[in-house]
Amino acid sequence: MTLNILIAPSGFKESLEADEVADCIEAGILRVLPSARIQKAPLVDGGEGFTRGLVNATGGTLHSAIVTGPVGQSVAAHFGFLGGDGPRTAVLEMAAAAGLRLVPREARNPLLTTTYGVGELIKAALDAGAERILVGCGDSGTNDGGAGMAQALGVRLLNAEGEEIGRGGGELIHLDRIDMSQRDPRLAEVQIDVACNWHNLLCGPKGVARVFGPQKGASPETVEQMAAALDRYAEIIQRDLDLDVREAPGSGASGGLGTGLSALVGATLHPRYDIVMQYLDLETLLQESDLAITAEGSIDFQTPRGKIPAEVGRRAKKYGIPVVAIAGTIGEDAQVNFDCGIDSFESILDGPCSLEEAIANACELVTNAAERLTRLLLVGQRLSA
Amino acid sequence: MTLNILIAPSGFKESLEADEVADCIEAGILRVLPSARIQKAPLVDGGEGFTRGLVNATGGTLHSAIVTGPVGQSVAAHFGFLGGDGPRTAVLEMAAAAGLRLVPREARNPLLTTTYGVGELIKAALDAGAERILVGCGDSGTNDGGAGMAQALGVRLLNAEGEEIGRGGGELIHLDRIDMSQRDPRLAEVQIDVACNWHNLLCGPKGVARVFGPQKGASPETVEQMAAALDRYAEIIQRDLDLDVREAPGSGASGGLGTGLSALVGATLHPRYDIVMQYLDLETLLQESDLAITAEGSIDFQTPRGKIPAEVGRRAKKYGIPVVAIAGTIGEDAQVNFDCGIDSFESILDGPCSLEEAIANACELVTNAAERLTRLLLVGQRLSA
Repeated sequence: MTLNILIAPSGFKESLEADEVADCIEAGILRVLPSARIQKAPLVDGGEGFTRGLVNATGGTLHSAIVTGPVGQSVAAHFGFLGGDGPRTAVLEMAAAAGLRLVPREARNPLLTTTYGVGELIKAALDAGAERILVGCGDSGTNDGGAGMAQALGVRLLNAEGEEIGRGGGELIHLDRIDMSQRDPRLAEVQIDVACNWHNLLCGPKGVARVFGPQKGASPETVEQMAAALDRYAEIIQRDLDLDVREAPGSGASGGLGTGLSALVGATLHPRYDIVMQYLDLETLLQESDLAITAEGSIDFQTPRGKIPAEVGRRAKKYGIPVVAIAGTIGEDAQVNFDCGIDSFESILDGPCSLEEAIANACELVTNAAERLTRLLLVGQRLSA
Repeated sequence: MTLNILIAPSGFKESLEADEVADCIEAGILRVLPSARIQKAPLVDGGEGFTRGLVNATGGTLHSAIVTGPVGQSVAAHFGFLGGDGPRTAVLEMAAAAGLRLVPREARNPLLTTTYGVGELIKAALDAGAERILVGCGDSGTNDGGAGMAQALGVRLLNAEGEEIGRGGGELIHLDRIDMSQRDPRLAEVQIDVACNWHNLLCGPKGVARVFGPQKGASPETVEQMAAALDRYAEIIQRDLDLDVREAPGSGASGGLGTGLSALVGATLHPRYDIVMQYLDLETLLQESDLAITAEGSIDFQTPRGKIPAEVGRRAKKYGIPVVAIAGTIGEDAQVNFDCGIDSFESILDGPCSLEEAIANACELVTNAAERLTRLLLVGQRLSA
C-alpha cells in the first residue's frame, strides 16, 4: 500500500524555514518509504521566506523586480506565482521591499522609512497578470501605515495645500485628504489577501507605534510622533472612507501596512496561517492524505492556542486523519495536544546537547526524526497485520 | 486487539537499573494502552541490582543473609528465588557480599579482600532449597580468584605445611595443594550458572590483576604480587584438577571469582546477558509477544557488537517480532542497528539539555518516550486499517 503523507510544518525559529523543515521531513520519510506519495504544505508566516516557501511548495515561479527600498534605495526584490490550477495567484512578502533587513542600522528612523516598494511589487504582480494576490506581512522595517505602498498604486495622500505628502510615517501628521480617483483601476478587479498577525493594531495603547516602534529604532519621543501620525491617518481614513481602522485586527501589521492594504487598496486581512492554509488548500490536501506530519520548534501547553501543529491537528481531525508532530522541544504539559488532533510527537534530539547545537544540526536532526517516526509507523502497521 | 508487549531493556548507566527502565517503559505504554499485556525481562548485568532485578521481573522472593564482608566485617546481604514454574532457582550477586562498595576506601587492598561471603551466600541458597543457582559477577571489591568463596563451601586450600591459607588474594602465593574432599556435597547436585563478563581473564598481560587491580586500590608493586599469586593459583589448579584456567573466558570475572566458581565449585561461566536471557526465558517470551521494546543509555555503531538492544533484536528477528529501542543517546552510525533486528529508535530527550539533566530526569523521560512510541505505533496501526 502506498502511503499518502502530507507534510505541513512550521519553521523552526532561528534555524530552519518551514519549507526547509518540510524538505528534511520528506528526506527522512523517503529513506524508509521511497515510494511514499508526499505532498508538502510548509506553513510559512508572512515574513522573510514567505514567497519562496509558497512558490517551492506549489511548484510555482519566482520573479524579480527592482523596487524602492525602505530608505529610498533601489532594491532587488521578488514576487512569485503559485503553481497548480485555479486563478493566476501572485504571492509576495512585504519584507522583500521594506523589511527591517533593508534598513541600515544607522538609518533606523521609523518616521522616514517607507513601504513604497511594496506598492511597486504589487504593481509588478499586476503587470505580470496576477488575478489574485497574497501579501505576507512580517519582519518589516517601516511604520508608515502602508501610505507609501498606497501612493505607489496611485492613491493620493494630500496635505492642506493639496500637495502629496512625502514618504515615511512621520509625514502622515500632515495628511489632510485622501484622493482615490487615480488609484490603479486593476485593484478593483483582483482579490488581495493579506497574511498578517491578527493581534497587531494600528492605534491605541497596544498600537503598533508603542509596541514595535522601539525595536525599529524609535526613541520615546519618536514613538509619540509615530503614534500621533498614525492617529491622524486613522482619523482621515474614517472621515474620507468611512472606515474605523484604529483597532481593527491586523490593522497594525508591518507598521500599519495592514491598514493601507485594507483601507486604501481593498485587500482583506487574515490571520496569517489561516490564509496560508487556504491558499495551499490544506483541507483538500488533508483529505487526500493517510497521515499528516507537522512540526514546530517547540510544542507545549500553549500550542493549542493557535500554533501550527494544533491548527493542522484540528483540521485533520475533521477528516479522521492521524497527525504526528515533530518538535525540537516537547515542553511543559505538551500532552494537552493529544486532545487537539495530534496523535503523537517525535523529538528531534538524539542525545544531550545545547540549544545552539540543536539549531546548528537542525536539518540532520529533523531528517533523522522523520526516519525514526516513519519506522515506528511501519512497526505499528505490522502489529495490526 | 490486545497487544502483547515484551519489555527487555538494559539499565541506563549512572541513572536507572534495568528493572527501573522496564517499569518506566511499562508506565508509558499503559498511559496509552491500559489493556496491553506486558511482560518484563530487565536485562541486568551481573553487578549490583542483579538479584533484585531478576526477582522483581519474575515475581520471585528476596531473602536476607548475614555473611562475611570483603574485609571480614559482617554484612547484611541477600539472595533471591525466581518466581514462576520450573526448578527452584536461586539468584545472587557477588557484589552483595564482596562488592567494592563494601570495601572502605582506606581498606582497599586487593591482596587482603575476600569473597568468603559469596560462598556463604551460595550456602544460604542451598540451605533454602535451591536446585539451580545463578550467580552474578560485577562491581567486585576483591581479587582472590574466588578462593574465599570456595573455602566457605568446604574446599581446602592448603599451604606447604598442610594448613589452610588465609583470606585474601595475596595468600594464594602460598597455595600448595587443593583438597576437594570436604567440599559441600550438595554442590555436585545443583546447577550453578555464572553471569560474567566473558572478556575478563585470570592471568597473562590482559589478566585481572593488571586490568582491574589499579581501580581496586593496587599500587604497581601490589599488581605484580596479585598477578604472581593468581599465576600460582592457576598452576596448582592445573596440576591438581587438570584444568587450564589461565586465559579461559570469564576466568578473571570479579577478581578471578569466575575461576573459583568454575574450577572449584563446578559452576558454568556464561557471557552475562546470554545466561540472563536464558534464565528469563527470553526466547519463549519473545514468541509470546507481538512487539519487543528494548532500551540502552546509548545506541550507536558499537551496539551490534553484543550490546543488549542488538542481542534482543537478533533473537526477535528469528521469530519475526518487531523491536523498538529506546535510547538516551542515538549516536554515531546508529542506523547500522536497523540491520540487526531493531526496527526503529525512540529518543528519550524532549529538548536541549545536559547529560546531568537527562540522568536526573531519566525516569520521566523514559516514561514519556514509551508513551510517544506507543502512540506512534497506534497511528501506524490505523494506517493499515
